[in-house]
Amino acid sequence: MKTEISLETMRHSASHLMAAAIQSLWPAARFGVGPAIENGFYYDVLLPESIGEEQLAEIEKRMRKQRLRFEREDLAIDEAIQRMRELDQPYKVELLGLLKEKGATSVARETGDECLVDETAPGGPAGVDRVSMYRTGEFIDLCRGPHVEHAGQIGAFKLHRLAGAYWRGQEQNDQLQRVYGLCYATQEELDAELARLEQVRLRDHRRIGKALHLFAFSDDVGSGLPLWLPNGVVLQDELAHLALQEERRDGYQRVVTPHITRENLYYRSGHLPFYQEDMYRPMDIDGEKFYLRPMNCPHHHQIYLAEPRSYRQLPLRLSEYGQVYRYEKSGSLSGLMRTRGFCQNDAHLYCRFDQAKQEFVKVMHLHARYYELMKIENYYMVLALPDLTKLDKYIDEPDKWLAALTIIREAMVESGYPFVEREGEAAFYGPKVDFMIKSVVGTEYAISTNQLDFLATERFGLTYRGADDQEHPVYVIHRAPLGSHERFTAFLIEHYAGAFPTWLAPVQVRVIPIADRHEAYAEEVRRALFEADVPTGTGGLRVDVDLGSERMQKKVRNAQLEKIPYMLVLGDREQEQRQVAVRLRSGTDLGDMPLDQLIARLRREVEQRADLPE
Amino acid sequence: MKTEISLETMRHSASHLMAAAIQSLWPAARFGVGPAIENGFYYDVLLPESIGEEQLAEIEKRMRKQRLRFEREDLAIDEAIQRMRELDQPYKVELLGLLKEKGATSVARETGDECLVDETAPGGPAGVDRVSMYRTGEFIDLCRGPHVEHAGQIGAFKLHRLAGAYWRGQEQNDQLQRVYGLCYATQEELDAELARLEQVRLRDHRRIGKALHLFAFSDDVGSGLPLWLPNGVVLQDELAHLALQEERRDGYQRVVTPHITRENLYYRSGHLPFYQEDMYRPMDIDGEKFYLRPMNCPHHHQIYLAEPRSYRQLPLRLSEYGQVYRYEKSGSLSGLMRTRGFCQNDAHLYCRFDQAKQEFVKVMHLHARYYELMKIENYYMVLALPDLTKLDKYIDEPDKWLAALTIIREAMVESGYPFVEREGEAAFYGPKVDFMIKSVVGTEYAISTNQLDFLATERFGLTYRGADDQEHPVYVIHRAPLGSHERFTAFLIEHYAGAFPTWLAPVQVRVIPIADRHEAYAEEVRRALFEADVPTGTGGLRVDVDLGSERMQKKVRNAQLEKIPYMLVLGDREQEQRQVAVRLRSGTDLGDMPLDQLIARLRREVEQRADLPE
Repeated sequence: MKTEISLETMRHSASHLMAAAIQSLWPAARFGVGPAIENGFYYDVLLPESIGEEQLAEIEKRMRKQRLRFEREDLAIDEAIQRMRELDQPYKVELLGLLKEKGATSVARETGDECLVDETAPGGPAGVDRVSMYRTGEFIDLCRGPHVEHAGQIGAFKLHRLAGAYWRGQEQNDQLQRVYGLCYATQEELDAELARLEQVRLRDHRRIGKALHLFAFSDDVGSGLPLWLPNGVVLQDELAHLALQEERRDGYQRVVTPHITRENLYYRSGHLPFYQEDMYRPMDIDGEKFYLRPMNCPHHHQIYLAEPRSYRQLPLRLSEYGQVYRYEKSGSLSGLMRTRGFCQNDAHLYCRFDQAKQEFVKVMHLHARYYELMKIENYYMVLALPDLTKLDKYIDEPDKWLAALTIIREAMVESGYPFVEREGEAAFYGPKVDFMIKSVVGTEYAISTNQLDFLATERFGLTYRGADDQEHPVYVIHRAPLGSHERFTAFLIEHYAGAFPTWLAPVQVRVIPIADRHEAYAEEVRRALFEADVPTGTGGLRVDVDLGSERMQKKVRNAQLEKIPYMLVLGDREQEQRQVAVRLRSGTDLGDMPLDQLIARLRREVEQRADLPE
Repeated sequence: MKTEISLETMRHSASHLMAAAIQSLWPAARFGVGPAIENGFYYDVLLPESIGEEQLAEIEKRMRKQRLRFEREDLAIDEAIQRMRELDQPYKVELLGLLKEKGATSVARETGDECLVDETAPGGPAGVDRVSMYRTGEFIDLCRGPHVEHAGQIGAFKLHRLAGAYWRGQEQNDQLQRVYGLCYATQEELDAELARLEQVRLRDHRRIGKALHLFAFSDDVGSGLPLWLPNGVVLQDELAHLALQEERRDGYQRVVTPHITRENLYYRSGHLPFYQEDMYRPMDIDGEKFYLRPMNCPHHHQIYLAEPRSYRQLPLRLSEYGQVYRYEKSGSLSGLMRTRGFCQNDAHLYCRFDQAKQEFVKVMHLHARYYELMKIENYYMVLALPDLTKLDKYIDEPDKWLAALTIIREAMVESGYPFVEREGEAAFYGPKVDFMIKSVVGTEYAISTNQLDFLATERFGLTYRGADDQEHPVYVIHRAPLGSHERFTAFLIEHYAGAFPTWLAPVQVRVIPIADRHEAYAEEVRRALFEADVPTGTGGLRVDVDLGSERMQKKVRNAQLEKIPYMLVLGDREQEQRQVAVRLRSGTDLGDMPLDQLIARLRREVEQRADLPE
C-alpha cells in the first residue's frame, strides 16, 4: 500500500526508474551514483551527448510509460564486480572495488550516495563481502534498497534540472551530467514544490540584484567582493539609518576603527593562531605583519582601553557598521550570501555582571523590532551550548561559563521570544544565541549571532573601576542584529522579491509625462519632491522622470518592472489642475491629488517605514 | 643702520651670539651647525649636561648682556682645520674636511646650514680652498656671513624651544641638543610670532583630540591608524551628512566598493609598478596577490564598466566616503595630519568632453560652498602644469594634454576664485588643481586635489555610446573637496580650536541641574531635546546631563572646557516655570526661555549650520 512506502524509498526508486529510462534511450550510458535528496533524487551519468530540456521531457515520458518492477538479488562482491564489468559500467566497478576495500560508510560519505550497499549483509568493519543489486527493467544497479515493488508506487515526480558533476567530486575526474528530479507522495505536494521553486527562481537575489542594478562583481577586483551600485547603496544607507535611529534610542555610541592591525592584536585576542584559516594572509609593513580584520571586536576593545572606565560609565555600547574580511574558498562563494568581505551591523556592549541580563534582553527586543518592522515572521533563537560533559574543552572556568549561560537563558525566557537549545555549538569565549529567520520561500538563515563574553577581561585586560575603587571584570555582549549587511540584503531582496517598501526602494517615485508638452511640469513636480522635507536615510525622496519616447502605458509597465512604488502620470488635466495622477506599483490607481497630499502620504510612509498598500 | 640689515643676517648673527653665550657658560661645548630658519635660528650643540627652560633663560640673559662685535677673517682651509682642532671642535673639523673634499653646496645640503662658507672665495667646483671665519667674543665660527657689526643690531629675539638632533641627521651619530630662538626686526613682530605659537600650541589637534576624546591610537593596532572615539565619529557623521546633502543637490550617486582588489586592477590602472612604494605589500589569497587600495578610482571605474553607458546617462557622478591605505614611513606620521589609512570624500565624474568644463566649474563652486560655510578665508587654487617643454615625459599625446589644460584653465577663470599656476607638478594622467587653505595660525594646507583624467578611456576602456551609435572616450574628473577626512578634521580642530559650531559639536547641549531635587526635571528636559525633531547628521540633538556632585559653577566651567555650545542650568525657578536658563559656551547668558523656543533656535542653527553667537 502506498501509504506504507516512505518518501525516501519512493525518491530512491525514482532515480532507478530514471536510470532505466536513460539506459533505454542511450544504451552506452555509464552510471555514477543516484541518491534520494531533500525534494527528490538525482543520477550522475556519462552520456554520449549533452542533453537539455527536450531530452528531460523524453526521459520523463519513458519513465511514465514503463510500469517496471524492482527485483532484488544478493551476490558476492567479486561476482558483482564481474557483472558490472560485463555491463561496461566502470564507475560501478570502481565503487564496488572501494566497497570491498573501505566499507560502505566510507564510500557513502565520499560519493554522497548512502544507498550503495546493504549494511545488514555480512562483511568486516572495513570491507564488504556481499552486496545487493536491484534490477529495474534492463537496468541493474548496485543498491542497498529498500525499493518500491513497481513504478506505480512511486508517487508524483518531475525531472526539473540539469547540472554538471565531477565523478566522486574531484575536478580531475570525468565530468558527468547530473539529472535532477522532484518526487512527492501526491501531485499536490509536487505542485507546491514546483511553485516554491518558481518563487526561489523569481526571488533569486542574484537575478534581482542584476535587474534592479543593486550590485555587481568584477573579475579584476576579485570573487566574493561585491561592488555596490547606486541603487544598492540606498539599501545600505537606509538600513544603516534605521540602525542609527534604533541604536541611538538604546544608548549606543558610534565608533570607527581601521580595517587592518598589527598581528599583536590577534595574538592577544586569540585569533592567531586559532582563527587563522579564516583570515587573509598577512601584509608586511616595515618588517611587521599586518592583518585585514576578520572581526571588529578586538578593535572595539582598544577603544574601551583608550580611557580609564568607571562603573558610572557602564554599560558602554560601542557600535560600528564595520567592514570585515574573511577567507572563503572560491567554490563556496555565492552572490551576497557568502562573500569574502562584508559589513557587519556590529556593536559591543561593555557592562557589569549585574547589567548583563538586562542588556541581553534589550538586544533581543531590538532584533524583534527589526523583524516586526520588516514583517519577518516565525523567527526564533537558538542557544548554542557547550557539551557540558566536556566543559574543560571550552574553558578552564566552568563556573563562569555556567553563570553566563544562566544569564542568557534567563534573558531568553524574559524576552518572551521562542528559542531552542543545541548542544556542542558554543563559541570558545562564551555561550551564543543565533537568531533564525525563514524566508518566504522556506529557506532558513542564521542571520545574527549574539554572545556573552566573559574572557575579554582576561585577554585584553578590560576592567572598570567600581564604587569600591577596585578594578572589576567587564562582560562583553557581541551583537549584530542585522547580521552581515551583504547577507541580510540578499535575504531582504528574496523576502520582498525586489518590491521593497517605499522607505527602502532605490527609486521611490517615477514621474511620467504623457507627452513632450508635459515635460516642464514633470520637472517641476520632480524638483518639488526632491526638495520635500521627507526624512529618508539618503537626504530626501528618491525620484526620477521618464523622459523616454515610449508611450505612457509602456513607461508605467517599465516602472512596475523596476518595482518603483509610486508612479505619477502627468497629462493635460494634471498640468492644468496642478495635480498628479498617482498609481501604485500594484497597479492600483489612486486618482488625482495635489502634490502636497502626496508628499504628506510619502512622509508618513517613510517615517513609519510602512508597507506599500496594494 | 638697522633698516639695511636683512632679517636673515640678524637671525644668523643671533645664532652666533647664542653660541658665544653657550660657550661662555659651558666652555666644553662642542658646536654643530647653527643656521637661520623661518622665524629665527637654532644651534646644535653637544653639552656636558641636558639643559632645560631654566638654562634657556640664562643663555638669553647672557646674550643680552654682551654687546659683542662680529669680526671676519679669511684663511686657508688647512689653517682653519688646524684652528678648529686647537679649539677642540670636532664637528667643525669634520665640516671643514667635507668642505675641502665636496664643496660648499653639497655640505650645506647635507647639514641644512647654508651659511658655511663664502662662495665668493676661490676654490674649484668640487672642493674649497679658503674659508671665512667669524669671531664673536670668545666664540669663533666657520661662516660665510654676512653678519651684523655688533649684537645691538640684531633686533628682538627670544629663545623658546629645545629639541634633540642627530649630528648630520644620522641616527648612528652623536645626539646633540638643538636650541631654537625666534628673531624679528621689532619687538612687535616677535610678540606677534609668540602669540601665534601660543595659538599653535593651544590649537594643536593632537592635544585637543585627546582633551575632547575625539580619537586615539593603539600600539597593538599600529602607528598611523587612528581609532575614532564616539565624539570624533560625530565629526565624521556630520561632515559625511553635509557632503551627502551637497552632493545630492549636485546630482551625485553613491557607491560602496571593497578595500582590497586583485593585482590585475592595479596593473590595468598603472599603480603597479609606478605607485608601488606608496602601497602596502600584497596579501596572498589562493596563490593570487591582493592589495589594499591606495585610491578609490580603479574601483569606481569598475562600477562604470558594470553596465553599458549611453551619452544620455552622462555625466555620471559616483561618490564614496572611501577608506584607502597608503604606506608612510613611521617617522613621517603625525596625528591625523599624516596617517597610514584615511577616508576620502571622493567622487569620480564621468563625462563627455563637452561637459567637462561645466562639471569642473561646479566642483569648484562646491569647494567654495564648504569653505564659506566653515568660514575658511583666503583659499586659492594651484594649477599644476607639466614642464611643457618635456610634455612627452608625461604623455604621448600632448594635444589631449593641452586640450585638458585649456578646459581646466577656462573653468578656473569662470569660477571666479583666485588661482596660481605652477610648472612641473602635474600628475601623469592629467593636469590637477589643488585647493589651498590657510589655518587661523597661518599654516597652509593643500586640502583637496582635483584632476581631469583623459587616460581612463585608454587604460580601462571607459567609453560611452554616443547618439551616433559609436563608442566615445570618457573624461573623468577626480575630486575630493573635503580631502582626507583625517586631515580635514585635523584642520578643523585647529581652525575652531575645538570650539565647534553647534552642528559639528560632539555634545551640543549640557543640562546642569543645580541640586539633586532638579534631576528629574533635568532628565525630562534631556529627553525632550533628545527626541526633538532637529535634523543633525546623527539622528537628533546630542545632549547629556551632568549628574555629578560638583557645584553648578564648576559644572558650567567643565562644560566650557569641553567646548559644549549650550548649557542649560536648571534650578527651582526654571523647574516651577517649566523653562530653561540658557548659557552659551562664551559665557553669554541668554536668560530663561521655554524649551520650545530653545529647540526652534537649535533647529535653525543646525539647519543653517550657523556659527554659535558669542
